[in-house]
Amino acid sequence: MKKILIGEKGRKFLVKGSEFHSNHGRVEIVEGAETATSHLGHRFSVLSPDIIDIYEKMPRSGSYMLKKDIAMILGMLGVGCGAVVVDAGTGSAALAIFLGNIVGPAGHVYSYDLRPESIAIARGNIESAGLTDVVSACEGNVLDGFSKETGSVDFLTLDLSEAWEALEDGKRILKRGGRIAVYNPYIEHARLVNNCLVELGFMEIKTLESSNREIEFRAQGTRPKTSRVGHSGYLTFARKV
Amino acid sequence: MKKILIGEKGRKFLVKGSEFHSNHGRVEIVEGAETATSHLGHRFSVLSPDIIDIYEKMPRSGSYMLKKDIAMILGMLGVGCGAVVVDAGTGSAALAIFLGNIVGPAGHVYSYDLRPESIAIARGNIESAGLTDVVSACEGNVLDGFSKETGSVDFLTLDLSEAWEALEDGKRILKRGGRIAVYNPYIEHARLVNNCLVELGFMEIKTLESSNREIEFRAQGTRPKTSRVGHSGYLTFARKV
Amino acid sequence: MKKILIGEKGRKFLVKGSEFHSNHGRVEIVEGAETATSHLGHRFSVLSPDIIDIYEKMPRSGSYMLKKDIAMILGMLGVGCGAVVVDAGTGSAALAIFLGNIVGPAGHVYSYDLRPESIAIARGNIESAGLTDVVSACEGNVLDGFSKETGSVDFLTLDLSEAWEALEDGKRILKRGGRIAVYNPYIEHARLVNNCLVELGFMEIKTLESSNREIEFRAQGTRPKTSRVGHSGYLTFARKV
Amino acid sequence: MKKILIGEKGRKFLVKGSEFHSNHGRVEIVEGAETATSHLGHRFSVLSPDIIDIYEKMPRSGSYMLKKDIAMILGMLGVGCGAVVVDAGTGSAALAIFLGNIVGPAGHVYSYDLRPESIAIARGNIESAGLTDVVSACEGNVLDGFSKETGSVDFLTLDLSEAWEALEDGKRILKRGGRIAVYNPYIEHARLVNNCLVELGFMEIKTLESSNREIEFRAQGTRPKTSRVGHSGYLTFARKV
Repeated sequence: MKKILIGEKGRKFLVKGSEFHSNHGRVEIVEGAETATSHLGHRFSVLSPDIIDIYEKMPRSGSYMLKKDIAMILGMLGVGCGAVVVDAGTGSAALAIFLGNIVGPAGHVYSYDLRPESIAIARGNIESAGLTDVVSACEGNVLDGFSKETGSVDFLTLDLSEAWEALEDGKRILKRGGRIAVYNPYIEHARLVNNCLVELGFMEIKTLESSNREIEFRAQGTRPKTSRVGHSGYLTFARKV
Repeated sequence: MKKILIGEKGRKFLVKGSEFHSNHGRVEIVEGAETATSHLGHRFSVLSPDIIDIYEKMPRSGSYMLKKDIAMILGMLGVGCGAVVVDAGTGSAALAIFLGNIVGPAGHVYSYDLRPESIAIARGNIESAGLTDVVSACEGNVLDGFSKETGSVDFLTLDLSEAWEALEDGKRILKRGGRIAVYNPYIEHARLVNNCLVELGFMEIKTLESSNREIEFRAQGTRPKTSRVGHSGYLTFARKV
Repeated sequence: MKKILIGEKGRKFLVKGSEFHSNHGRVEIVEGAETATSHLGHRFSVLSPDIIDIYEKMPRSGSYMLKKDIAMILGMLGVGCGAVVVDAGTGSAALAIFLGNIVGPAGHVYSYDLRPESIAIARGNIESAGLTDVVSACEGNVLDGFSKETGSVDFLTLDLSEAWEALEDGKRILKRGGRIAVYNPYIEHARLVNNCLVELGFMEIKTLESSNREIEFRAQGTRPKTSRVGHSGYLTFARKV
Repeated sequence: MKKILIGEKGRKFLVKGSEFHSNHGRVEIVEGAETATSHLGHRFSVLSPDIIDIYEKMPRSGSYMLKKDIAMILGMLGVGCGAVVVDAGTGSAALAIFLGNIVGPAGHVYSYDLRPESIAIARGNIESAGLTDVVSACEGNVLDGFSKETGSVDFLTLDLSEAWEALEDGKRILKRGGRIAVYNPYIEHARLVNNCLVELGFMEIKTLESSNREIEFRAQGTRPKTSRVGHSGYLTFARKV
């Protein structure tokens, strides 16, 4: 069982096993204890990791989806307990584990990626999140996945370099009323996706860019942080009617 | 059973019963049919409403939380299937029904509001969303709710004018590792909340502002929409350790 | 001589002559007086209009450039006293009068527009701004303007629907080290302009979008205004070397 | 006479004298030549520096005002040729030289700073910009400056830690109709400034935050840059009536 250790200044460690070494010293974690102290006297809170901890601490393969974009996908799709979701590409499974955390054992997330190294990392992260029964990371093309499942998927989430090629088959496997989200770093790709969705008869098509701005409360005064993410990607949403 | 009717240009209606009148004419909805046509010849897709439809079409009491803020709360807290959430004020239950949609029957959302007229509207909306067994809208102070439930709440979501007064009791009822989200329209209030959270020993405290920017794909070219929400509120997140 | 009248709540009127009627009543303006009072008892401050007053109150032809974009052009080009500027299309002369206000009688602004109705409005606005000796509004194609002036223009400002077609001639009339600004509502057009600038050997090429966010100080607290401009245009800057 | 050298990939150097050494090799600059080649074969364009070059390459003392904020001040005030401006604190004279470049020899910029080391750097930068006759960098409190000049200043620009203390005297030296700009990093300070301006009877009071977003045109597609300035300061504008 993994544990999360949080130091007094907020530094956070995901720890496997009962012992942990860092530049704060050696820490032994007693099963059931709420705190632990290193041999150098640093005190840590000990918690069971939640989905946010897993997301923040998990190994990554290549770029990964930012929490702001994951959040917007969850909210704009309205993903709920029990839903069936098809997802591609898996990447590090960042989006897939958030989806799995929501759909729970009554639903399922089928996530596809062509790259075996992504699938390997994804499976480890899914296991860390305790979601092996809920999220399947499959090595393969999402189109294969589409041929397997027929007609009853609630949501489709695509973060693929040529997502527009998956939209026709994607539409077929979606339930009527089902929703789709597509992530594109470049505006020209978002436009292509948008055009395809229009041609395929999707409704409620909307492309947006989400951004978060963190606020800093200092003794001198309050202001937004001086650094900030400039851009990650465009999110396109649509619905099969 | 309510139905969603979507016209050819995307106008959407939430319809109760088998007949519906609009300036597109009179429409009869045949049980099980996927489309319906008005006596003036307008064609509608007929769907079962999902949580997004309910949110978009539900009656409101006063101001309501925008989907961008709801999404960010869902994502930053990592709310999942089976979670227990305490929420206040209920308002129109916009946030509560998104929470209920996620936690499902294995979890529960207890939502409090002092205003009987909000509770009345909220209960109607919860029923429309099919979540009466999952979301309880309670007339009363969230602090009363806190005294009822002891020690085992996963998430706490506060959209109250003086949220800082609820933080100490709120902390008590949260599980260790549980997370809190507070919504404040004004920066001074967010600062107060932030200060209280620091004093109460919360960790992973972060205040942010979320914004969405919609993109317009026109024949002439692509650009962000010329109008845009300027501000709704600040979101503060923290965790009990 | 025009006057600016500012009411007690900030409403502003540009007045020609010594008498003025509004729903605040009839006002007589005494030459040299700093205030005026309407027959209904409303008091006004009386000022000579400055360039900001002229910009805010001038007649418009079609869309006009927002002050945020004008400001960014002035600042990114580094326009100064004595500079020679070629500008097109004139539109209402919003940008041209800001340029003229800066370059002064030691410099000159040559502004071109194909539409006679724009030129008529522009000339009125230039006169209101007291800049008839500094800003010439010329009916015609900016390319004609380019053929007239040879080799010694400091700055070139283009707000044209097909600005890329003017870049080659534009480069020729610019001084070495001279700078250009192009305004485009759509991103595809900004990309075209950018590509042309690269091909023509311009340096220091940069495209940006400027946005202002107004803050509201209310008794209850401080926050950004709830409404906001979503988008006006992209600004591309470059330099001839 | 200083020169600007721009390399083939856009790197820019401000060079004093006829010889220049960098990791591109040794370059001799022949008076009047438009290009120069290093002994390693790197080719440079040779230009006379303009105000943008000076701003980008000048020595700084501490933090300095970003071009987006300078631009917004120039545009929102409507500074023009011949204007008289009082400015404090000088800092590196970033704002002062942009102001001086605009007001020209028919106007003047009086800039105050308490720190002798800022004034020393500022004077060097003003000289580099060729503005010694137009911009005076004065060691001292802006309030002293106020007592010297009486009643005829067009614009007042304040970037001071306690700017609100200078507003009453500042108002006195402004012409009727004159405008003021105040820069504050923290929102609480902007609120204080705002309150003082209201109490002192200023009109057309507005606080805003300016931001620029740079666009990247890559072969794969177009998108905003992935990094971006998060915040610099709030700008408050007002007018004496």
